[in-house]
Amino acid sequence: MKAMGAVPAGFVAAPNGALEIERHPVGYWVEKAGGTPLFLYDVERIERQVAAFRAAMPERLALHYAVKANPFGPLLDRMAGLVDGFDLASRGEIARVAHHDLPKSLAGPGKSLPDHEAALRAGVVVHVESEGEAQRLCDIATHVGIRPKVAVRVNPPFLLKGAGMKMGGLASAFGVDSERVPNLVAWLIDQQVDFRGYHVYAGSQSLSEDAIVAAQKATLDLVVDITQKTGEMPAEVNLGGGFGIPYYAGETPLSLRVIGEGLGQVLKGLPEEFADTKLIVELGRWLVGEAGVYLTRILDIKKSGGQTFAVTDGGLQHMLAATGNFGQFLRRNYPIVNATRFAEEASVSMNVVGRLCTPLDLLGDQVMMPADTQVGDDIAIFCAGAYGLTASPHDFLSQPKALEMLAQSSG
Amino acid sequence: MKAMGAVPAGFVAAPNGALEIERHPVGYWVEKAGGTPLFLYDVERIERQVAAFRAAMPERLALHYAVKANPFGPLLDRMAGLVDGFDLASRGEIARVAHHDLPKSLAGPGKSLPDHEAALRAGVVVHVESEGEAQRLCDIATHVGIRPKVAVRVNPPFLLKGAGMKMGGLASAFGVDSERVPNLVAWLIDQQVDFRGYHVYAGSQSLSEDAIVAAQKATLDLVVDITQKTGEMPAEVNLGGGFGIPYYAGETPLSLRVIGEGLGQVLKGLPEEFADTKLIVELGRWLVGEAGVYLTRILDIKKSGGQTFAVTDGGLQHMLAATGNFGQFLRRNYPIVNATRFAEEASVSMNVVGRLCTPLDLLGDQVMMPADTQVGDDIAIFCAGAYGLTASPHDFLSQPKALEMLAQSSG
Repeated sequence: MKAMGAVPAGFVAAPNGALEIERHPVGYWVEKAGGTPLFLYDVERIERQVAAFRAAMPERLALHYAVKANPFGPLLDRMAGLVDGFDLASRGEIARVAHHDLPKSLAGPGKSLPDHEAALRAGVVVHVESEGEAQRLCDIATHVGIRPKVAVRVNPPFLLKGAGMKMGGLASAFGVDSERVPNLVAWLIDQQVDFRGYHVYAGSQSLSEDAIVAAQKATLDLVVDITQKTGEMPAEVNLGGGFGIPYYAGETPLSLRVIGEGLGQVLKGLPEEFADTKLIVELGRWLVGEAGVYLTRILDIKKSGGQTFAVTDGGLQHMLAATGNFGQFLRRNYPIVNATRFAEEASVSMNVVGRLCTPLDLLGDQVMMPADTQVGDDIAIFCAGAYGLTASPHDFLSQPKALEMLAQSSG
Repeated sequence: MKAMGAVPAGFVAAPNGALEIERHPVGYWVEKAGGTPLFLYDVERIERQVAAFRAAMPERLALHYAVKANPFGPLLDRMAGLVDGFDLASRGEIARVAHHDLPKSLAGPGKSLPDHEAALRAGVVVHVESEGEAQRLCDIATHVGIRPKVAVRVNPPFLLKGAGMKMGGLASAFGVDSERVPNLVAWLIDQQVDFRGYHVYAGSQSLSEDAIVAAQKATLDLVVDITQKTGEMPAEVNLGGGFGIPYYAGETPLSLRVIGEGLGQVLKGLPEEFADTKLIVELGRWLVGEAGVYLTRILDIKKSGGQTFAVTDGGLQHMLAATGNFGQFLRRNYPIVNATRFAEEASVSMNVVGRLCTPLDLLGDQVMMPADTQVGDDIAIFCAGAYGLTASPHDFLSQPKALEMLAQSSG
């Protein structure tokens, strides 16, 4: 057997021995959804994450949801009642939250004229990522006669240490190198834009509280320094995200209390004149990742070369990251269980594979399953709420689409 | 700068200096398609590949197209006039070629009841991959009253050496371990199925002629051995594919002549009683890979940390493999050029990136581009005809879909 990540805290067995989600065994949800493969999103878990964030973090901190983590419509509608704003990555995402009256911003290194126009018409703050983009945005804003709301995305001279994905401290497609930012801000002010402030994103998927606080402190120090050079107070500063969740063996959840206390100390050192600056943290994965469970049914169990293979009706076309094929250097097992027999002891080693004709389609590499595991059982992969279906090649091999559903007892 | 793969032979510059495809500069096709990002498939290149195959390979060899490589509808319609059959991987693919009256087969380790039923009703040969699947297929066949056409997919005790993807010689989700095949065949005969023969797939994306011929020989030896044990002559044997194309620096195209001569020798040693056995090679990537060009327009050019970044309107959501994030262990550059300035000397190093907010979205890592490269130019990535759009997470970040078009002067 090989190691796998720990099942996120709080998942228990239903009276029938199956994995329970929102007070029902998974079979209830599969039937309600109409089958497998199914992404099930537990709204109460998301609500608990938001509550944990609010309880632990300094009160002045605004919480934005990074829509790219999971843009499922019904989920966005629930997020709208929980968070303080949406951070967006395309005009497609602008359209998905257009009916929600919340603060919104648009980031991304490759914005086109239609992207800028959509942002202008929707009142979205544009995070410009280069001098060229700033010029093009001002041109189209003049053309359509709307004063643009602009923040500058800064490529910071530091990075989020230990992050799964480093996005600062290097030559980068993201943001404007910090030493060029004061000139750009002066130019933007000159263009009479509605200057909103800064966006600094130093990395994602960190499980180190100290590294996250250090990046937040470095971000605020950088903003203070830039502000001294420009003389322009930022109305808002987006501190980025970076809060990770445990996927693999040996990883442990972040302590929000530690981050909150650390950031609290940092804020005490922030100069008085920033008292009214809105500080934003944008989170995607941390808010919704552990709330998602991917359910896929066993179609066949077979032996080969002394090993057992459980072949499911899903695969990498829905959960690419769980197969280790989305930017990971080494393949490691996500938490994966037999959801139908969650209460049973996992005593035999199996390979859980998807249905695609490629050896890449490996969902569980020699993971432990109950000895009784059989065709028709449902496999659950946890940590499927973020960067799941939309981060996977779901048309590959023209297989049936996965279903998505909110698990909510109220309907 | 870093190395990149060689541009496939035969691509030249148009009189205006742009990359020419099917006697027109790329700009003609982009305008005709309605913009970028665009997958352009050159039908004449595919026709030339098929002709090269026919000319070099033993005459008795049938050529099947593996639809999973590229299931674009208009392309399938053209393939139908070129190849001898379709190899399919899902009931979705069955539906895509339902209107073509050609031999078809269905493989895949995770076939469901609807998959089997679709295959039965469409007269598709089912490649069963386990004893359990054989049982379920016979059950549904009895239920719907159609005699199933069945071949056995064999997990061979050897592998295709040097293949980009090894699919034999190991414990595997694919096929039935060869030592169990005779018993399964006896059982199938007992069930009075229309027994068709065998399917052996030892690996894909090989650039070694010798290794391909060795795998073909080992496959035929294995089939002869199994046939001696069963006493049942196979009507057909699918020898798999495995013909690779060069993607990276230092890789060179296969010599079909060498493979054809080698296989010719192998066939001379095949026992007389196999004279009427249909021998099939199934190819996807080799037929269509080099015929595809992915075109994406530069939206921004920016400097950061001493490097230059060309930010395009495409990215990993369309060409995941070109970013090194689809099963590759190391990221290497696909052949990539400025298609608008194809005739100009590539003299400066640039990073070509997609528009997504992730550092994974790197299409060209320090590749050489013309010094004059500017916003509005179209970047071309070659080898985009197979495992391109459908093997990519095209809904990621809700970006606009890529377009697809056949480049054919007649239409």
